[in-house]
Amino acid sequence: MLCFSMKKKFYTTVRVRYGETDQMGYCYYGNYAQYLEIGRVEALRTIGIRYKDLENDGVMLPVLDFQIKYISPAKYDDLLMIETTIQEVTGSRIFFTYKIYNEFEKEVVIAQTTLVFVAKESMRPIKAPESILKAIES
Amino acid sequence: MLCFSMKKKFYTTVRVRYGETDQMGYCYYGNYAQYLEIGRVEALRTIGIRYKDLENDGVMLPVLDFQIKYISPAKYDDLLMIETTIQEVTGSRIFFTYKIYNEFEKEVVIAQTTLVFVAKESMRPIKAPESILKAIES
Amino acid sequence: MLCFSMKKKFYTTVRVRYGETDQMGYCYYGNYAQYLEIGRVEALRTIGIRYKDLENDGVMLPVLDFQIKYISPAKYDDLLMIETTIQEVTGSRIFFTYKIYNEFEKEVVIAQTTLVFVAKESMRPIKAPESILKAIES
Amino acid sequence: MLCFSMKKKFYTTVRVRYGETDQMGYCYYGNYAQYLEIGRVEALRTIGIRYKDLENDGVMLPVLDFQIKYISPAKYDDLLMIETTIQEVTGSRIFFTYKIYNEFEKEVVIAQTTLVFVAKESMRPIKAPESILKAIES
Repeated sequence: MLCFSMKKKFYTTVRVRYGETDQMGYCYYGNYAQYLEIGRVEALRTIGIRYKDLENDGVMLPVLDFQIKYISPAKYDDLLMIETTIQEVTGSRIFFTYKIYNEFEKEVVIAQTTLVFVAKESMRPIKAPESILKAIES
Repeated sequence: MLCFSMKKKFYTTVRVRYGETDQMGYCYYGNYAQYLEIGRVEALRTIGIRYKDLENDGVMLPVLDFQIKYISPAKYDDLLMIETTIQEVTGSRIFFTYKIYNEFEKEVVIAQTTLVFVAKESMRPIKAPESILKAIES
Repeated sequence: MLCFSMKKKFYTTVRVRYGETDQMGYCYYGNYAQYLEIGRVEALRTIGIRYKDLENDGVMLPVLDFQIKYISPAKYDDLLMIETTIQEVTGSRIFFTYKIYNEFEKEVVIAQTTLVFVAKESMRPIKAPESILKAIES
Repeated sequence: MLCFSMKKKFYTTVRVRYGETDQMGYCYYGNYAQYLEIGRVEALRTIGIRYKDLENDGVMLPVLDFQIKYISPAKYDDLLMIETTIQEVTGSRIFFTYKIYNEFEKEVVIAQTTLVFVAKESMRPIKAPESILKAIES
């Protein structure tokens, strides 16, 4: 179900905050959603798209679905590497996959998300903006 | 610095979530800001003011300052009692104080916040709406 | 992929906090993980199992995988109904499914999680405790 | 009440995450507690102290009190500069002050915290470890 392609990968890091741990001593399972968001925002920034500008231009990108497998726990102060792949843009949807590693190159999670381009005014799905398609192709 | 009056008190409860604990085994110190927000929102609801309606009517209520003393730790699954007091409304500001207790009536934190009424359009401070003043007086 | 059975359902509510919204005006997609945790903790409490006691008895229950579909957005102050179903306990694993509705009975998300019983000392998977199996059967 | 000294200042940055905004379009007031924690952890790291090691050595550092003034709002994707000052270590306590600026050097918040050195076993206050005192002096 979770598959990974040969597409271009983007890398960014995030350090586990104290407030993100839970009493098990691990990064709480719900906090990875924020890490994945950082992964895709930084992937887009790398190809010249600031998500902030998208919203200012009236386009929002809510998440439609999200799947994650927890492989090994991340701990406080771990410097995690987020590997993000833009898998595909089809119509109004954009698919990302992710792997997160710790400093010892141990896999922490693998995940995937589907997001949809939505017009801010109508709150309806729209085709992926040309700027996005061009940025991804190049 | 933190003082408490004989004003009307409002009570609401919140249960500490697993994701709100940290690896010390306590509720993370940053999560109390959300609990205090629940305290003041429920206090306002009790006197007939829904904060949601305020925003829909073009009034926002950002926090200007916030002070908190951590007295004893809250733990996972603790059912906390939030005691909220509306201390004063002066011009465009509203002052709340709070005490949070655990199930054994042990004080967990005491806190205070100042919030300011702001017009959504201009983003400038405005006088407290009449509806608020009336609701608080009665 | 997300399937739901005729098993016993458990219900609990949660109100969307201001700090859980994002600038889209919706409950942030990452916050549902906490709501699902509330759903399963309260489901277990209903059948006589306090998750807190489990941990005190040396058993932890980390999440192995998590899948969620976002159907309609939840907004600030929405009172959400979390419907939790304990689908199955097999060996060391426990499967939950969830539906979250808003006050208008509109589906907000559907989700599923797999958790694993782990001994706190060895950090290794163990069979589901007898107390859990009995509580679920009855 | 919030005062700032001529002591050594430490700098680190944090980018406001989407999930940290609220529907006002600002960084939620409760999220700054995490930013301040990053500030003090990175300040300690700079002088050779890893907070993680402290805990592994049986010393915890819970927050006793926390005060913050919100001066101008931080927004999504803002790259914030956290300026942290270790003001003083007295007995079992350590005092930090903080200023957070945005990219336009506008003050976002000023804050201060008191933390206490606690022995993990006894959960009682202890004198600041020698390693900390030496690291701060040099």
